Amino acid sequence: MSNDYLSQMATDIQVARQQATFPVEELTKTLYGGELILHVVQKLRAIMDKEPLLDRSQTNYMNREQMLHYSLVVHKRLMELVDEEDLSDLEFQGLVLLSELMSPLGLHYSAFIPVLQSQGTDEQVAKWVEPAKKLAIMGCYAQTELGHGSNVQGLRTTATLDTNTDEFIVHSPDLTAAKWWIGGLGIAATHCVLQAQLIIDGKSYGPHIFVVPVRSPVDRKPLQGVTVGDIGPKAYGGFSTVDNGFALFDHVRIPRENMLMRFAQVTRNGEYIRPVHDKLSYGSMVKLRVGMVADAGIKLGKAATIAIRYCTVRRQFHDTATKDGSKKDKLEQQVISYSSVKHRLFPLVAVSYALLFAGQSVGADFEKMTKQLLNQDASMLPEMHITTCSLKVWCTRRSTDGQEECRKAMGGHGYSQFSGVGQLFATAVPSNTYEGDNYVLCQQVGRALLKQLQVVSDGTKIESSNASYLNLLLSDIPHTPYKLNNPYHDILDPKIQENIFGLRAARLVADLGKQMKSGRPWSDVNMECWNVCFAHAEYNLVRQFNQRVAAVSAKTPSLAKAITQLANLFAISIITQSSMATFLSTGTLQSTDLDGIQAQFRQLLDQVAENAVPLTDAFGFTDRELTSALGSYDGRSYERLWEAVQKNPLNNEAGRKEIDAVLFDLLHHGNNLTLSSKL
Amino acid sequence: MSNDYLSQMATDIQVARQQATFPVEELTKTLYGGELILHVVQKLRAIMDKEPLLDRSQTNYMNREQMLHYSLVVHKRLMELVDEEDLSDLEFQGLVLLSELMSPLGLHYSAFIPVLQSQGTDEQVAKWVEPAKKLAIMGCYAQTELGHGSNVQGLRTTATLDTNTDEFIVHSPDLTAAKWWIGGLGIAATHCVLQAQLIIDGKSYGPHIFVVPVRSPVDRKPLQGVTVGDIGPKAYGGFSTVDNGFALFDHVRIPRENMLMRFAQVTRNGEYIRPVHDKLSYGSMVKLRVGMVADAGIKLGKAATIAIRYCTVRRQFHDTATKDGSKKDKLEQQVISYSSVKHRLFPLVAVSYALLFAGQSVGADFEKMTKQLLNQDASMLPEMHITTCSLKVWCTRRSTDGQEECRKAMGGHGYSQFSGVGQLFATAVPSNTYEGDNYVLCQQVGRALLKQLQVVSDGTKIESSNASYLNLLLSDIPHTPYKLNNPYHDILDPKIQENIFGLRAARLVADLGKQMKSGRPWSDVNMECWNVCFAHAEYNLVRQFNQRVAAVSAKTPSLAKAITQLANLFAISIITQSSMATFLSTGTLQSTDLDGIQAQFRQLLDQVAENAVPLTDAFGFTDRELTSALGSYDGRSYERLWEAVQKNPLNNEAGRKEIDAVLFDLLHHGNNLTLSSKL
Repeated sequence: MSNDYLSQMATDIQVARQQATFPVEELTKTLYGGELILHVVQKLRAIMDKEPLLDRSQTNYMNREQMLHYSLVVHKRLMELVDEEDLSDLEFQGLVLLSELMSPLGLHYSAFIPVLQSQGTDEQVAKWVEPAKKLAIMGCYAQTELGHGSNVQGLRTTATLDTNTDEFIVHSPDLTAAKWWIGGLGIAATHCVLQAQLIIDGKSYGPHIFVVPVRSPVDRKPLQGVTVGDIGPKAYGGFSTVDNGFALFDHVRIPRENMLMRFAQVTRNGEYIRPVHDKLSYGSMVKLRVGMVADAGIKLGKAATIAIRYCTVRRQFHDTATKDGSKKDKLEQQVISYSSVKHRLFPLVAVSYALLFAGQSVGADFEKMTKQLLNQDASMLPEMHITTCSLKVWCTRRSTDGQEECRKAMGGHGYSQFSGVGQLFATAVPSNTYEGDNYVLCQQVGRALLKQLQVVSDGTKIESSNASYLNLLLSDIPHTPYKLNNPYHDILDPKIQENIFGLRAARLVADLGKQMKSGRPWSDVNMECWNVCFAHAEYNLVRQFNQRVAAVSAKTPSLAKAITQLANLFAISIITQSSMATFLSTGTLQSTDLDGIQAQFRQLLDQVAENAVPLTDAFGFTDRELTSALGSYDGRSYERLWEAVQKNPLNNEAGRKEIDAVLFDLLHHGNNLTLSSKL
Repeated sequence: MSNDYLSQMATDIQVARQQATFPVEELTKTLYGGELILHVVQKLRAIMDKEPLLDRSQTNYMNREQMLHYSLVVHKRLMELVDEEDLSDLEFQGLVLLSELMSPLGLHYSAFIPVLQSQGTDEQVAKWVEPAKKLAIMGCYAQTELGHGSNVQGLRTTATLDTNTDEFIVHSPDLTAAKWWIGGLGIAATHCVLQAQLIIDGKSYGPHIFVVPVRSPVDRKPLQGVTVGDIGPKAYGGFSTVDNGFALFDHVRIPRENMLMRFAQVTRNGEYIRPVHDKLSYGSMVKLRVGMVADAGIKLGKAATIAIRYCTVRRQFHDTATKDGSKKDKLEQQVISYSSVKHRLFPLVAVSYALLFAGQSVGADFEKMTKQLLNQDASMLPEMHITTCSLKVWCTRRSTDGQEECRKAMGGHGYSQFSGVGQLFATAVPSNTYEGDNYVLCQQVGRALLKQLQVVSDGTKIESSNASYLNLLLSDIPHTPYKLNNPYHDILDPKIQENIFGLRAARLVADLGKQMKSGRPWSDVNMECWNVCFAHAEYNLVRQFNQRVAAVSAKTPSLAKAITQLANLFAISIITQSSMATFLSTGTLQSTDLDGIQAQFRQLLDQVAENAVPLTDAFGFTDRELTSALGSYDGRSYERLWEAVQKNPLNNEAGRKEIDAVLFDLLHHGNNLTLSSKL
């Protein structure tokens, strides 16, 4: 078998790497927040690369039972590695993260234990956390019910105090109160921390958290009064290794001490003691959303890496510019050179970078806030809440839409499981609806910004830095386009970008205020809130990206040009692609500005084209992490596809015994064999 | 277990049905093109509803091997039903279609046999088709290769004539020439009709079609020189019941008569005889895309039906308007009443209708063209090609984006496999890249419209009806907004809608022409072609929808109001949602028009809200067809979810034996049992 075409693919990716106009390792260091962290990550990656068990491509041919089993075996192996490689607790967490292990035990670590730690008294922490860390008990966090998700106050599971026995009676009044979607509950959990309406003497005190045993750690059978199980497969084959579960409670009795009482308490004689601070549980919600920003960036970065590598080595159609007889001797065009592919993929690389940078920045803010909260200072909380809500909405939507666009940009082969992108999207896409449905969160952003608008409308400058653009309204003559003398050049100025994005956001908030004043009810302006939320997020993302570029460029001048191009591509692609409508409809830009901005956009795409592969290499994803035949580092997509197919059990007779039987039945029916014998 | 909440759900959906402002059965009749067809469909649906085997929900817990087996068993059963129920050939096709059976035999019927029939000589048809119909042989259509999809001319499989033996030698020169993605080839096919470069005396004559045996009908083993198998799972678990396959040929010899010779021929002494007409194979490509329009409408209609039914019975949050103490006694708000849900779902119902109507209309045009082609009249072909290309791009993109939006609109539960929408999307989404990748097709649309633009630029009116909007350019003063005296009212005028959509499309085509004149190469204007393609499709969809509304209203006045609202919603949602940017950027509308148009949009949403459930009921989908716990006709979503979960094999000990073993191992490790015994 000749392999000129195949070796050309490896050549193409090498050539693309050699074009880099910046030092890739320097950018990687920046992305990982410094040499120290990068070093740890590289150490963990090396450990994992030695483990054949961690090659997730073997799950391609597994059914759900096998996948769940596989994920638990992997988890066990990771625990062994802690001893073998003498890893710290933090390194173990890094291992779980980098292995992308989602197992029935994932939420045990990320929710069950943290909730115990943050909501339990010192005695409760002492009692539960150590056994949990040793997996003597396995836990989950049971909040969502069949009938209630977004509306947490409406949860219907009850925990009623029985002062006679000093117990709570946990009960699900009907099917709608069944806990549902709870990761870890389906198969693994022996215990859950459960949100239930606290009821004392017939009076409800709202949702509180209780530790409720559900299965015996000895024989793993459900405890009396508990009906528990797995809720079945998820859409797109996502989260197959997680046992999202359900539970119904029929008057299940737990000791009063199983209520987590760090904040609110219930005494032996049934007295309810309110928490000192209402907002302290708030912080953990913010924390979850902080983590989602970088995660969305990583997932989109992986999809973009795969798509850009594959489109670099895939060639299709001869360049129509040369119509001479020599056509056949020439190589076909690289798919990455098509303008539609550039328009679709390169802005997504910029989005990945924007989200990774924003994730770091919002993470730092969160740490600052956490320290302040310890000193009873909750001043950062309202703004952090809005910032993280708007970022969560933006990053989950843009990242998952972008992942699917990457898959489409790979054409037919993108639809193979072996592209690896389908699996990313399948697991990422529910982030649009979990940790706060995006449309619900937008309303919170809208409501908060309306409050700030009120301040500005009263003629006062606001201090909030993330919504400071509202101050532009103090001098804004409505519907005057932002004055661009030379759109092609001006649009590259960070200050001008900030002004344009700020003005648009301000006008959308002002319009929301106007709509409310005109008498439209709050429930009618969901979509206005959606636009406001996106504009708010985009203002902050553009501003932060530019600030980060300035800082990085000062520190590492060799990166300046490449990341400046990327930041500009990010800002301008928002104007020319996803959000053009609101820039024009708010009168921030006028249609005559667009020619110049579009021309600059194309110019940037061509500049970024030189660095496309290096910019995705800089993410540092290993082949193991990408689990993609099409996006392997060496560019040998077709050979990798071929290898993946060889493992297909359907290609062995044993794997299709029953199938073959039906086919034989049909082929040998009646006088069919006589008919086919001549063909 | 009390069930007030559960019975409320059934009440909610009944109330929604009672609100209908039009006779649902009349609309159903219209959608199915008359009472006669509807009667047949209902007969087939009744037959299928009697067959428990056809309940596709049982595949929820199957692995791929089981699903493939299941689909073949179902196919066998459908063949039996033909005898039992005395069905015609056409009714059998209807059965396959309505059963949504995608099996390894699907393309045998829809591609293998039709290609034999249309490309084979009478002798070849006589020889192959009858055995094929009896399934004495099973076939597939092998075109795409690992290295070539869009560029059919670039296929690398060769069929070289050996005049000594009067045979062709079929050969794959290397891995990139492997046939890939071929439905039916992975497991089932004994034969394929194969696209290969015809080579005679060292000269290539381009791709031609050959019948090539690949497996023995006797023992189903691959024939000598053939390497064949299944290419593995697809993204999102889509097409699991189809055995997309690969094949490599190592100097496989077939008789010369196995080349299909209706058009081109190769004689015994190696002479090549050209076909009389080049374009005759063209028609079958057009036919495939014609079918995709209605199919996209049906799939989106199913997703919208499910989402609207579920959002009607799902209640979440108390109406914030009433903040009194009585809150708890009141029911929560129906999710369908949220303005964001209306904005997202109702326009998708309008899109479904638009696509169903457009599918009928383009289907009728196709029949007309087919008749003309028989009389050597190919005059309709160029316009039909562009119309179907632009519709194919638009309908696949909007339908699949819409399906996923329906899934998101259902919040958390939408991510359950049992929502049924994930499975729709998983199987529909590759339509964006097959039968012509959407971005490749857009370029064909752009190129064709540039030719028409040239005619107009020369001062001549064009006759093409679907691009007649280009004639507007003859009197268009550039960048003058369309004059709307009262946007709120004017936008409802079909004539004005046609003008606005026409003017926008014309200006986008004119701009494409301007860009080309300015020296930008063709390969640089992909995105301009994309916009042109969408504008072209939208112009025709809006016009056709309005025409259809006029015709239906005249015939069935009781439907007039409801479908007029729907047509208006379709047109206006394009302006206010997906395509606002190009209406503003081309200066067709101005931002000051938007307030009125948006107000009308909201008004229409409220009007359609009354009919939301009835409009989706009118599609006539059965519960079996929807296969959705959330979207069942009776509105009992939660109970259906509960039923579906009970079938989960993971909820039986036998189904999780291996999983339990690992969990025991961890729980009983070290002194864990001692630790857990106190908890």
